[in-house]
Amino acid sequence: MHHAERDRRRLMSAVSIASEHVHKTRRALALMTLAFLPCAASAQDATAKANTDPRQAHVSAIVRESLVRGQAFTTLQTICAEYPRRLSGSIDASNAVQWAKRQMEADGLENVRLEPCKVPVWVRGNVADLAIVEPAALSSTKLSICALGGSVGTSDAAPIRAGVVVVQSFEELAALGEGARGKIVFFDRAMDPKELDPFTAYGGAANQRTRGAIEAAKVGAVAAIVRSLTLRIDDHPHTGAMRYEDGVAKIPAAAISTAGAERLTALLAKNPGIVLSLKLECRTLDDVDSFNVVGELRGRESPDEIVLIGGHLDGWDLGQGAHDDGAGVAQVMEALRLVKTLGLRPRRTLRACLFMNEENGLRGARAYLAAHKDELSKHVMALETDRGGFAPREFGTDANPAAFTQLSGYTRLFAGTGADRLVPGGGGADIGELAKSGVPLLEFIPDASRYFDLHHSSRDILSEVHPRELELGAALIASIAWCVADDPVTLPRNTPKSDAASK
Amino acid sequence: MHHAERDRRRLMSAVSIASEHVHKTRRALALMTLAFLPCAASAQDATAKANTDPRQAHVSAIVRESLVRGQAFTTLQTICAEYPRRLSGSIDASNAVQWAKRQMEADGLENVRLEPCKVPVWVRGNVADLAIVEPAALSSTKLSICALGGSVGTSDAAPIRAGVVVVQSFEELAALGEGARGKIVFFDRAMDPKELDPFTAYGGAANQRTRGAIEAAKVGAVAAIVRSLTLRIDDHPHTGAMRYEDGVAKIPAAAISTAGAERLTALLAKNPGIVLSLKLECRTLDDVDSFNVVGELRGRESPDEIVLIGGHLDGWDLGQGAHDDGAGVAQVMEALRLVKTLGLRPRRTLRACLFMNEENGLRGARAYLAAHKDELSKHVMALETDRGGFAPREFGTDANPAAFTQLSGYTRLFAGTGADRLVPGGGGADIGELAKSGVPLLEFIPDASRYFDLHHSSRDILSEVHPRELELGAALIASIAWCVADDPVTLPRNTPKSDAASK
Repeated sequence: MHHAERDRRRLMSAVSIASEHVHKTRRALALMTLAFLPCAASAQDATAKANTDPRQAHVSAIVRESLVRGQAFTTLQTICAEYPRRLSGSIDASNAVQWAKRQMEADGLENVRLEPCKVPVWVRGNVADLAIVEPAALSSTKLSICALGGSVGTSDAAPIRAGVVVVQSFEELAALGEGARGKIVFFDRAMDPKELDPFTAYGGAANQRTRGAIEAAKVGAVAAIVRSLTLRIDDHPHTGAMRYEDGVAKIPAAAISTAGAERLTALLAKNPGIVLSLKLECRTLDDVDSFNVVGELRGRESPDEIVLIGGHLDGWDLGQGAHDDGAGVAQVMEALRLVKTLGLRPRRTLRACLFMNEENGLRGARAYLAAHKDELSKHVMALETDRGGFAPREFGTDANPAAFTQLSGYTRLFAGTGADRLVPGGGGADIGELAKSGVPLLEFIPDASRYFDLHHSSRDILSEVHPRELELGAALIASIAWCVADDPVTLPRNTPKSDAASK
Repeated sequence: MHHAERDRRRLMSAVSIASEHVHKTRRALALMTLAFLPCAASAQDATAKANTDPRQAHVSAIVRESLVRGQAFTTLQTICAEYPRRLSGSIDASNAVQWAKRQMEADGLENVRLEPCKVPVWVRGNVADLAIVEPAALSSTKLSICALGGSVGTSDAAPIRAGVVVVQSFEELAALGEGARGKIVFFDRAMDPKELDPFTAYGGAANQRTRGAIEAAKVGAVAAIVRSLTLRIDDHPHTGAMRYEDGVAKIPAAAISTAGAERLTALLAKNPGIVLSLKLECRTLDDVDSFNVVGELRGRESPDEIVLIGGHLDGWDLGQGAHDDGAGVAQVMEALRLVKTLGLRPRRTLRACLFMNEENGLRGARAYLAAHKDELSKHVMALETDRGGFAPREFGTDANPAAFTQLSGYTRLFAGTGADRLVPGGGGADIGELAKSGVPLLEFIPDASRYFDLHHSSRDILSEVHPRELELGAALIASIAWCVADDPVTLPRNTPKSDAASK
């Protein structure tokens, strides 16, 4: 494409996204005007100039500051370079906790503190091998696997050697009757490519990973191999949490790369008698002490009312946890830094929490609930960012209609950013339980196209994060948190949910 | 992120994007139902099941077919592997023309033909060197450049050796008076990072590239060096078209990488007397014959009414033109293939045109106008895809209010795809002139975050294109073209524009 001239009116077009709503166009024009304010620090002064919603000036200043001088990517560089394998209980996780506290203090946040939680310690070890041992003609074939998080290892004495049954579902497994006894169960159901939302496709296949070892053990199998949860065909296995169940034998469980899964399926079709050798060195150690990291910008009028934003500081141990959830951590820290840097002080307290142990236990989330049980009724909103640092698309919420309308008034201020929509449905693993106390939940939703290409694999590294996409996300998280924290009208609470699940 | 279960309702949420509009939710539910139709070929039969807009069934079938069995990425692989440097007049361009015709025929399109146009031939040559020759202490310093498209080369006898003046604008250059005479002018204005839309930032800096050599020559300079048009700081120079003006000396013009520009600026600050050596081997040859490639699905009721979709087959010669505009070519070919594969036959004729010479002359666009001048009044709509193959975000249009409303009815059917919005403003370099005949223009608008990282550089290669993002774009282009071509109500025409620019 050339002809730059024909694109000069593009911002105008992009900003006035919903031209059928005249008021949006007015806000868009306000945004454009503000884009030329001389100095970031003048944001609060600029309020007087905004002719519609006074928050527009603040949002515009936050967005501009992030695009020109944002620090989220620099923060993420530090996380990925210095604490790449932050699985709960690891040395990287422990060091990341201390670093995050120091960084929040350096950013000038208030009440910076570590809030303790006990976390499980699962150690991957150095060996994860899956190889064909029979027939002899295939015996040089190795398949890329990684242990699933929480799996027991194989015996130190000898690897598991067993035949294979391949199934697409637990129903198919159950129908085998005794057919899986003594075998390795290979769960090969792929994420469904026709699902528009990759998260839906993920949800449709993930039970193989979380419960595959349980269901396999129930029918007498000796191990579970699960097709990696990604739409790409490549040779990077994707780890993730798996569970055991009381009264059911604990058998080893590993993820196989999608390329490996395709190959194994093809080989089994011609050689149903294939015998595999599986060796995993992973093991679970005793729980250790760890921490959530909390920092605040105290409210100027109602400091006891809390607007909480969070991501999780722990991550899987194959890549750098750049998108999951280094990006979220960087955005949460950056959100408060942006507000502080612009000289803004919210009406209510803006609190950042970097949760520990989201990936394999949610101990940090539980510790937060216990530590703050007396102020849950004062939590006005909770937002989580845990879908990667991709280009912002929208926000999701479980808020009731009145709160939804109020929140929509804020997201409309994001015209031109590509993420001015609020959609129903939203929460997060770390904040989900707050719904029980009636706290409205928000979720930052970036573009999901590429998330599962990387998720829980060695590909989740810094180079996959686009600086401007990350910074803009931080700015919008800062903006919506600012709006909720500063609005004279308190966001209406939800009816407390008995169902703990984030909706 | 874990906890797949909490994401099960995500498609529902994503699909019902604007929950305040109940009718959208109904459409979303229809879409979900259709996602489970047993067979793609049953699309037309399925119409009876869609309870609101009969086009919903068609759109759903097209989207699903593209996500499960789409061929756009495979097509793009062929383009990038076999015809990577398709600059007008090149052997790759010539071979790409013949391939595209064969492929359209293989896809079963009708009236497949080559429509002739004469194109300019500019040859980059093997040498593009910029080095510091004075002061001696810096004389080993080389800076990454590439010739701008259309530039004259330097003399075979000797490189240009000259001092440097750095300017941010033409005004600053003019204010130098005689200060630029005999010098190399270094245009160093960066794309503005605070512009939300990278295309706006591009538009704000691109005149340095297109007219820099003219303005520099007017004040007696001997060459122009232009900061590459990208927001990233890296060492890949970005080429693109530049012009000369009658009566003004033709001086060589090159783009310098942004990293090179930052370095040169820093060095000049301490060493204003720096002397550079510039050598470019590029040159312009005589015009040659080339072609647009055209194919159709003829209309079943009004075959003389044309719905035109296009991209451009030529591309710059540094990378593979994967996003610019191999992606557009692949999407346009795929759009017709999808419709054909699903057994759909539109009311009006659906025409694909792969334009030649978009990048440096628009000769293909002009040839199309001349060849089809008698049927321009029968062109119902023209759509261009030339913003890369990234995740779909929206469609833009210059349509009048009545047509805008009609088109919005189609884009609403895209709920759940992330690109169900129609915004004002849209066109394309190749289709822009059709506005003079009152043809409503549409533009496919994908996510713009990463486009200028790659644009016109050696980084614009296949690995930067995400298969699902590309396929979904092809499906939505197919869908909106299908809706316009099949609606019993003809899309209202615009008032013919005297201004040729696409709005």
